[in-house]
Amino acid sequence: MDLVGDKLVFEDFAPGALDTYRKQAKFKWKKLKLFFEDEEMLKIKMKVWKTLENDPIFERPEVELTTDEKKRRAARQLRRYVDCMFPEKDIRKLPYKKRTRLLMACNEALNSTFPDVSIKYALGVALFSNTIVTLGTDRHQRFAFAGNKMLSCLALTEIAHGSNTKQMRTTATYDEKTQEFIINTPDFQAAKCWVGNLGKQCTIALLFAQLYTKNQCHGLHAFVVPIRDPNTLMPYPGIVVGDMGEKIGLNGIDNGFIMFKNYRIPRENLLNRTADVTPDGEYESSFTDPGKILGAALENLSMGRVGIMQESSNNLICAITIAVRYAAVRKQFSSNGNGDEELPLIEYQLHQWRLFPYLAAAAVLRVFVNNFAETYLSTVEKSSSDSTELENLNEMVSEIHAMVCCAKPLLTWTCRDATQECREACGGHGFLKCARLGELRIVNDPCVTYEGDNNVLVQQTSNWLLRQWHAVNSGERLSSPLGSCTFFVHHMDIVGRKYCCRSISELQTIDCLLYGFSCLDKHLIYFYQGGYTNDPSMAVNVKETILQLCDRLKPDSIAIIDSLAPPDYVIHSVLGKSDGKLYENLQTAITHAPGAMSRPAWWQEIVDTTPFMKLQSKL
Amino acid sequence: MDLVGDKLVFEDFAPGALDTYRKQAKFKWKKLKLFFEDEEMLKIKMKVWKTLENDPIFERPEVELTTDEKKRRAARQLRRYVDCMFPEKDIRKLPYKKRTRLLMACNEALNSTFPDVSIKYALGVALFSNTIVTLGTDRHQRFAFAGNKMLSCLALTEIAHGSNTKQMRTTATYDEKTQEFIINTPDFQAAKCWVGNLGKQCTIALLFAQLYTKNQCHGLHAFVVPIRDPNTLMPYPGIVVGDMGEKIGLNGIDNGFIMFKNYRIPRENLLNRTADVTPDGEYESSFTDPGKILGAALENLSMGRVGIMQESSNNLICAITIAVRYAAVRKQFSSNGNGDEELPLIEYQLHQWRLFPYLAAAAVLRVFVNNFAETYLSTVEKSSSDSTELENLNEMVSEIHAMVCCAKPLLTWTCRDATQECREACGGHGFLKCARLGELRIVNDPCVTYEGDNNVLVQQTSNWLLRQWHAVNSGERLSSPLGSCTFFVHHMDIVGRKYCCRSISELQTIDCLLYGFSCLDKHLIYFYQGGYTNDPSMAVNVKETILQLCDRLKPDSIAIIDSLAPPDYVIHSVLGKSDGKLYENLQTAITHAPGAMSRPAWWQEIVDTTPFMKLQSKL
Repeated sequence: MDLVGDKLVFEDFAPGALDTYRKQAKFKWKKLKLFFEDEEMLKIKMKVWKTLENDPIFERPEVELTTDEKKRRAARQLRRYVDCMFPEKDIRKLPYKKRTRLLMACNEALNSTFPDVSIKYALGVALFSNTIVTLGTDRHQRFAFAGNKMLSCLALTEIAHGSNTKQMRTTATYDEKTQEFIINTPDFQAAKCWVGNLGKQCTIALLFAQLYTKNQCHGLHAFVVPIRDPNTLMPYPGIVVGDMGEKIGLNGIDNGFIMFKNYRIPRENLLNRTADVTPDGEYESSFTDPGKILGAALENLSMGRVGIMQESSNNLICAITIAVRYAAVRKQFSSNGNGDEELPLIEYQLHQWRLFPYLAAAAVLRVFVNNFAETYLSTVEKSSSDSTELENLNEMVSEIHAMVCCAKPLLTWTCRDATQECREACGGHGFLKCARLGELRIVNDPCVTYEGDNNVLVQQTSNWLLRQWHAVNSGERLSSPLGSCTFFVHHMDIVGRKYCCRSISELQTIDCLLYGFSCLDKHLIYFYQGGYTNDPSMAVNVKETILQLCDRLKPDSIAIIDSLAPPDYVIHSVLGKSDGKLYENLQTAITHAPGAMSRPAWWQEIVDTTPFMKLQSKL
Repeated sequence: MDLVGDKLVFEDFAPGALDTYRKQAKFKWKKLKLFFEDEEMLKIKMKVWKTLENDPIFERPEVELTTDEKKRRAARQLRRYVDCMFPEKDIRKLPYKKRTRLLMACNEALNSTFPDVSIKYALGVALFSNTIVTLGTDRHQRFAFAGNKMLSCLALTEIAHGSNTKQMRTTATYDEKTQEFIINTPDFQAAKCWVGNLGKQCTIALLFAQLYTKNQCHGLHAFVVPIRDPNTLMPYPGIVVGDMGEKIGLNGIDNGFIMFKNYRIPRENLLNRTADVTPDGEYESSFTDPGKILGAALENLSMGRVGIMQESSNNLICAITIAVRYAAVRKQFSSNGNGDEELPLIEYQLHQWRLFPYLAAAAVLRVFVNNFAETYLSTVEKSSSDSTELENLNEMVSEIHAMVCCAKPLLTWTCRDATQECREACGGHGFLKCARLGELRIVNDPCVTYEGDNNVLVQQTSNWLLRQWHAVNSGERLSSPLGSCTFFVHHMDIVGRKYCCRSISELQTIDCLLYGFSCLDKHLIYFYQGGYTNDPSMAVNVKETILQLCDRLKPDSIAIIDSLAPPDYVIHSVLGKSDGKLYENLQTAITHAPGAMSRPAWWQEIVDTTPFMKLQSKL
């Protein structure tokens, strides 16, 4: 796949070891590719990828960098990326939904190649600008879209409080005399932390703090807070700011912590769209419930969660591409045991059982995430343009929130399990850094706990479901405008149904079936526990069906991968290239690595001519 | 815990946030500690730990090192560790089992603190010496215990063949004229690879190659092969050797690859205990089946697998220690919802459900691994000292092999899942490098695919079980001298049993019960699939019982952790210290890290005084 001028071009793959399976496919991969992704979005992604590929600032380092150097590179790359103004210069003229879809496609392209930079951008530019627009008023617009001049960050989490946002202890106390807010951090436990861009780089912060006027607390509110002098990058007096230090991964991001000691900001720095403080210290709110103001502020984070879903979907696709292509080329053992005709791993039932459900998941979830993003953006667009049906809109926002709160865990946990299985399915070679499975795993890892801990998020969905369930059972109206739980209405009928074995309809595609059955398999026990069946054959049939579906998926597997996979530049794995030249690529990667075959500079330190016995007597 | 002179001393923990739970325990942790571990083994471990802690060569770096520097440090540390001659100077005088248990305890101590060094040592010194002793004869003894003078490596895996050892293609062809073997690598796919110590450091290799005499192949045999000049560390002519490059983790180990081009070694370098080649090229074997020779050679790897089991058990203990101590101190949300009295995470059923089964697994598997190592060493000792009951001995070796082949996957996969769950249960702070959960996860990661891929190993156990099953069903004698599958004999009776609910006997300890029930829960579907029950209440009861056991385990949980956990120096986690001063420790770690609060040296590169709009017009 390439972008020539303004046209997407799909070239055939070079002949090679993957041909055997490519030839078996019952469809054209190019056609399926455009089913998995909108042509316009593919084009903008290709534009981003080609730009990065040709820019020396985005050259991938040959050896592992130091943590400091990683931060330096990511910061420089971020500046460059902001300068590029993807997707286009006049983006603000486009309507909201179109604009956001394009921006999200750019984020996907950047995230799948330079995840650290993408997260820095998402937090410091996109999320910040969005929040200013949503929560601020005209007087804050100068902060939005400030680009490189004012890189920002979002300071919410504290050392001792993450999920329980209500208990955060950073305060912003209004001082009528000077018409300023005094920001204060009582102790280290209340230090804001994990703030991306804050450790080394950003100059302003969007800070969430408990707002106090006249000794009364009004709950968390958002403030624009200058952190560092943009000309010297020195923090302002009254601020203690620093870096969180080394992490398991994503070390290009300067996650930081910050403490304030009676630090003053102008009254106007409160984002006052939903609530304001008058010059003489009166608190005025358009909401009656302070909890709802916080809710509105935090709802902004949902967009971040949808972005995470897209990123996990991409990482899942990359991982399964690597593992399935490897499995189609790597041979081990033969069916007759004498080794004359060794079989590719993909031919083994066990290997299919391990990988194909994730291949199916990658395809199904790709489609789901695309559709869900559409629904999400439509709802947001409606919510800002149209307020006549406020009740229905509120219901839609609640339902969207409930869906995001289970979809983000589903995507990130599926990606977590898939990257691990793919790593193992590539054996020792999967442990090579240039196989890239380690990076995919580590990039996905924080997603299961940030922007809402998965285990806490799913409880928010449960909470919403229980509310709907209660409504249905007490004769009230179900509040599910998007239809995600309208089946509650028919629950008496559904609960009465029992297991009965039928043959699979050929209307449905194999990957959808396989994903469905592998989900059934994961939760099979609940069908017995819930009384849907007591027949052992259901368990047997589900497992047998999965094996049969794997067998039927095999001839199409490489073509599905080709349709899902981004270009080799993006996959960036020695094991997963589209040319199928596994061993040639491995040989080049290993033997051409800097210093691979040279004696280490420190060789003399480990050469010891003292005989061992003399060493022994020394002790 | 400390070692004072020759005496183990158990001091009380300093008072702190963990006291609440420590006081609830129904037993003394010090007593339980000596149940989990033999006092003598604890002593030798403490001796190793104290030595490392006080040696500047083993100082832990404050910042992430470069890959090259990691290799350098590990190589220097390895030399130093060899010099220490743990467990004691006269180790060779001790009887086999005692000696090996002590050596394994030292390996555990080193592995839990400096895993890279421990693996380099295990491969380059221990495994090499063992193989020389087992497969070599008198003429090879000069290679064994050669210490720093001749660091070795074990070259078995090839680029294109790992699990399928029989298909390896490196050859050793005997040349009668010169009485030498000519080692040859046909192409890169046959390059030996992943060989620990080979990349930069080692001077000799234990090489497995297909032995040819008079144009006939006799299968894989082991050879001692000089690789580099020990005085210059330059490879000998005819050898292409290099490093595998960067890996996902364990980058202190110089895993290498090697190719031979008509490289000659003396005839005497064949390890000839089980088979030899006469000067004029006659192949003589004490086995009739070449497959069995290979089997005997590879059986040596079992010891490595037992070592991996111990290491995974230790990593599991470290991970669960960190997560449970964190959960006992970290508070979030309150039961009444207003946040006045926030509850420790450990009080939440969900958190207990996530962690306590792994706490139980850590305790149960610790005991299992200790006992299994005993059984294993007894069998090996018997096999070398006594050959009168050869048949019974063969059966024991087969059964041990079958047990190792499922126990290593059980331990490493449990540790894999536990480290991941613990990382997630510590939220964002678990993503800090100084939390150490990332390192524990990454150190365990290769264990699931090396020394036998887990998925392949479990099939070897299945294979053995099927053979026994066939024997029982065809009226032959069961071959299970260790009793692991004697229940097959009563299979008619067992299969006839059906589920029936009984209350739990209080004879059994809670952690054993919890581990048992959580294993049942994982495989619950098979009880329905196999017809053991069709009653939904079994599933309900198992899950309910787990929750009840978690509740009962809670008051003892911290004391069990205290009994299992090694000293803080070994846990080495900012989240898991025994003092329970979570936030104080976090503050110190974060604010005292080098450069945490200073402006980066490259700050000018990211300060841009060009206003954004001008930047825009530049484009």
